[in-house]
Amino acid sequence: MVVLGIDPGSLNTGYGMIRQESGVLTVLGYGVIRLHVRKCQVERIGQIYRELDTVITSFRPERVVLETVFLSRNVQSALKLGQVRGAVIALAMNRNLSVHEYAPREVKSAVTGTGSATKEQVAFMVARLLGIHQVLKPYDVTDALGIALCDLLKGESREVLRSAGKAKSNCSSWSQFVSASPDLVI
Amino acid sequence: MVVLGIDPGSLNTGYGMIRQESGVLTVLGYGVIRLHVRKCQVERIGQIYRELDTVITSFRPERVVLETVFLSRNVQSALKLGQVRGAVIALAMNRNLSVHEYAPREVKSAVTGTGSATKEQVAFMVARLLGIHQVLKPYDVTDALGIALCDLLKGESREVLRSAGKAKSNCSSWSQFVSASPDLVI
Repeated sequence: MVVLGIDPGSLNTGYGMIRQESGVLTVLGYGVIRLHVRKCQVERIGQIYRELDTVITSFRPERVVLETVFLSRNVQSALKLGQVRGAVIALAMNRNLSVHEYAPREVKSAVTGTGSATKEQVAFMVARLLGIHQVLKPYDVTDALGIALCDLLKGESREVLRSAGKAKSNCSSWSQFVSASPDLVI
Repeated sequence: MVVLGIDPGSLNTGYGMIRQESGVLTVLGYGVIRLHVRKCQVERIGQIYRELDTVITSFRPERVVLETVFLSRNVQSALKLGQVRGAVIALAMNRNLSVHEYAPREVKSAVTGTGSATKEQVAFMVARLLGIHQVLKPYDVTDALGIALCDLLKGESREVLRSAGKAKSNCSSWSQFVSASPDLVI
């Protein structure tokens, strides 16, 4: 299972691709698509469509996951963000990929164990869960990897990982699960 | 020149396809894509992408034109509308079509001669300019045809039409131009 997590923004869109195979998580790639400030919205949407299309062609994910958006600064920024999200979803549907959305609290809770975690906490736990020793930046990337991770942790892979990590079944959160599984292979 | 005008909405998206050849305007097709109320946003975006893709395949337009949006009821509806617009623009860019936007006032002004025209006035003038004798409905369709018409009237075709209609060069609006050109072939 290869999952592409995307954190769409009206200027910067983070993405992270994770493969889960036999309980082992591998980061296939990540990055940020920076839209040209001076270009018009139409050109920006064309740019994000093309660049994400290349990413999908390279890594062939089976699922695309995004965070649900409830809030935005104002109507104009909501429109711009909506347009980028629409392009991302349209691309995924055009490539016959399944698309799933998670609420921000769900992502934070799945990755850190608490729905009110900060971006720093999410970045720290994403790196730890994925066995990355360097500091991951920017948050567009860690958020995107966190969304992909949330999808894998919430799916069938949860059971596989639990078995691989020999975790006790009474773990109520992933932070508890990770600290209770020192020999977890990720 | 074949132009596809689109009036995207979070539930109903109108479209109208007009061909302009040697000063003659021909409506190739129009309709409304009604998104399923009970489906989630992701499925709706997939639906609009697929249905518009079929329309584009059937009529092979060279340009896609939309109205610029400035206002929306609230942030949530702006996000939903933005997502539909993003899918439409992404599709057009993916099909290598040029995309243009016009402000609502520009469209009204080009079609009726006044930027403050009502939807009824736009519908009336769209039907008249396109030589359609039946009442065109709903406004999703007349707005979409109006946007396509605006693009053609504002482009090179304006000169061609002016010559075909033998209009005086001092026409300051299209309503004046149309009434001054009784033998205009459209």
